[in-house]
Amino acid sequence: MTDEQQENPRAGVSRRRLLGITGTGAAVGAATFAGGLGLGRATADDSVPQGGSRTYPFYGGHQSGVVTPAQDRLHFAAFDVTATTREDLITLLQAWTLAAAEMTQGRPAQADETSYDAPPADTGEADGLPASGLTLTFGFGPSLFRDAQGKDRFGIAARQPKELARLPHFPADKLDPSRSDGDLCVQACADDPQVAVHAIRNLSRIAFGSAEIRWAQLGFGRTSSTSTSQATPRNLFGFKDGTANLKAENAGDLDQHVWVARGDDPRAEWMTGGSYLVARRINMHLETWDRTSLREQEAIVGRDRPQGAPLSGGTEFTEPDFAAKGRGNEPLISATSHVQLAHPTRNGGAKMLRRGYNFTDGNDALGRLDAGLFFLAYVRRPSTQYIPMQNRLAQHDGMMEYLQHTGSALFAVPPGARAGGYVGEVLFT
Amino acid sequence: MTDEQQENPRAGVSRRRLLGITGTGAAVGAATFAGGLGLGRATADDSVPQGGSRTYPFYGGHQSGVVTPAQDRLHFAAFDVTATTREDLITLLQAWTLAAAEMTQGRPAQADETSYDAPPADTGEADGLPASGLTLTFGFGPSLFRDAQGKDRFGIAARQPKELARLPHFPADKLDPSRSDGDLCVQACADDPQVAVHAIRNLSRIAFGSAEIRWAQLGFGRTSSTSTSQATPRNLFGFKDGTANLKAENAGDLDQHVWVARGDDPRAEWMTGGSYLVARRINMHLETWDRTSLREQEAIVGRDRPQGAPLSGGTEFTEPDFAAKGRGNEPLISATSHVQLAHPTRNGGAKMLRRGYNFTDGNDALGRLDAGLFFLAYVRRPSTQYIPMQNRLAQHDGMMEYLQHTGSALFAVPPGARAGGYVGEVLFT
Repeated sequence: MTDEQQENPRAGVSRRRLLGITGTGAAVGAATFAGGLGLGRATADDSVPQGGSRTYPFYGGHQSGVVTPAQDRLHFAAFDVTATTREDLITLLQAWTLAAAEMTQGRPAQADETSYDAPPADTGEADGLPASGLTLTFGFGPSLFRDAQGKDRFGIAARQPKELARLPHFPADKLDPSRSDGDLCVQACADDPQVAVHAIRNLSRIAFGSAEIRWAQLGFGRTSSTSTSQATPRNLFGFKDGTANLKAENAGDLDQHVWVARGDDPRAEWMTGGSYLVARRINMHLETWDRTSLREQEAIVGRDRPQGAPLSGGTEFTEPDFAAKGRGNEPLISATSHVQLAHPTRNGGAKMLRRGYNFTDGNDALGRLDAGLFFLAYVRRPSTQYIPMQNRLAQHDGMMEYLQHTGSALFAVPPGARAGGYVGEVLFT
Repeated sequence: MTDEQQENPRAGVSRRRLLGITGTGAAVGAATFAGGLGLGRATADDSVPQGGSRTYPFYGGHQSGVVTPAQDRLHFAAFDVTATTREDLITLLQAWTLAAAEMTQGRPAQADETSYDAPPADTGEADGLPASGLTLTFGFGPSLFRDAQGKDRFGIAARQPKELARLPHFPADKLDPSRSDGDLCVQACADDPQVAVHAIRNLSRIAFGSAEIRWAQLGFGRTSSTSTSQATPRNLFGFKDGTANLKAENAGDLDQHVWVARGDDPRAEWMTGGSYLVARRINMHLETWDRTSLREQEAIVGRDRPQGAPLSGGTEFTEPDFAAKGRGNEPLISATSHVQLAHPTRNGGAKMLRRGYNFTDGNDALGRLDAGLFFLAYVRRPSTQYIPMQNRLAQHDGMMEYLQHTGSALFAVPPGARAGGYVGEVLFT
């Protein structure tokens, strides 16, 4: 036995136990438990039974976490890069890739080859928890390519996608700079929030000296379905949200509306197989909404509350009939309703893959909940699929009276990393 | 058909569908869906499949949410009462009771008897979600009995329990007044955070004009087990927490350490069957902890990290042997370890029922996670079961270097409401 084991009679037992287990199933390779002190995850006999042994691959043609069926919980973080050299940035992306590949399979962030005299390689709060469907999705902000003075920070400015520019100022935006933008982003989604928080914390720790969190957002409930296997959840206005969302099962839709194709942007061919992520923190004035009549609420949304059916009739998935008229020859669905203004037929056929989350961050000084929707959407071309629609919504949507956009960011989400490579490698080679 | 139904072709269908469903099983009485517009919860065909159809009773001798097996998620809110009369305070407690009895059974907060021209009676974001084990636990702060000038606010000062005084200032406390104290508290625990948030939001809405949220705290992961059926979870230091916690199955322990007994306080016999809730927001300096060696971390805790076994040997539930010596005749468990300082044998036999949650509220300006433990503990006598121990921990616990207490409150949690009565009724009769 080593000195460590003599001083701590538990160590030997723990390691033996951990070396003998199978972890979260076939996805867990025995190799990752070899060596080190055995601070592994997911022991067979002490796992907290929260379900969620699902795992999604980290490596692949596309990053996971885009068309993956939306998990229940979110921890999103935007980082400022403090490293100043291209090499240090690449080193960070390589380290993040290795850690993400481990954590998404329910394993610790880093193999633990340290002694008792060093800090543990993983922070440990997810030990015993299954992978819980964790996905980690990485993106690059415009400021990674050029700083505020236009300087090429890492020798990649010439390859900045033309679609990757700061989002414009939309009418009624009231953005908090400390909740906006960022050089890098990580979207952690999981069915257990402790697993998502653990992932962001360990990536932040790995980034120490190279990048630091600029802002972060927890989301407690998904507001969109991204798979036909999922029921449509409700937002904090009490309405089903994202009924008409793109679904993972419709590959043709994804190729047309989500994934960047070869030839989309000759100077940024590295984005082929990637996507663009629009992030908007949208505060919802719940107290005001809650004092609005159901009739008015449904008129604003353009759908009924109980089922989410369009006010022109049918069921949730019936196409709205904007021509249908009711009493006094008034349209059943108002021209300023959210459903009509956001509908693809009113936006040149544009669709988005929405992947947002409800949030609440305590309360303000007046005792009102600081709550709303953290809007996340993946699109192939923000310039045609998001910006025109948001301009239209911000000007005409009756719902804007109850909303305030307080954070904004746009990221280029590169294609998936190949095994042995790292996320974003295509940008640096 | 009514005018409303003519204008909204969905209404009739929705109502018929909702009236015909069985909801979350036997716990849902058909009567609650009678009348109104049928904005009921938990329709059979569109429920979001998140499991969690467990329900706990609201009425009973003790309030639920104390010894109930700790649910996974928390939304806690402290309220300032703005009502000025005893009658208005009672009216609030009555309205809260009715809403809590409904929501804990997976039903809307209030039966919906309004027209389309009124706001919905329930905010709707939990429609389709099961009860998810929701409990709502109510408490009274010292300031409800006497204001800062000592004035009897609601004619109840003579019945203020002697145990219900503001917690003293402990060494190293750095309390934020806007995260401390409060006239009333509501602890909402559920396995789905959207259900807990919905409950606090609707109680806050019902309180409009009588009370407003003073502070609120979301918790994303329970840090204690309160039942022998639950595995011990981990806190954000990566260690199992609450191994030696009181468990619901040990009724003798609960009677001795948790529930107030007749005769405990002659001027506050109304507290019989109730308990005292200590709430402390404890920030954890994760970045510093994460740079500490595993040896030091385990010495501070007094347990090993993988299994949570005491450093004197054995397994998680082995009693620590504080006399056991190791190399150099040093104790295996340090005298300043957390496990030793908090152990009942070092605190006159005092035990607590811990029910805390991990939290993270974004990040600070330096990019560090604003995260830690929202400590909740139920005790029969704070003056002997919490205050002396916390004084000792604050002075000697090696862990204090990594902690900062930023919020503090104490509440008297009355016994459970009887069906037909209201929570806290015993205080007013």
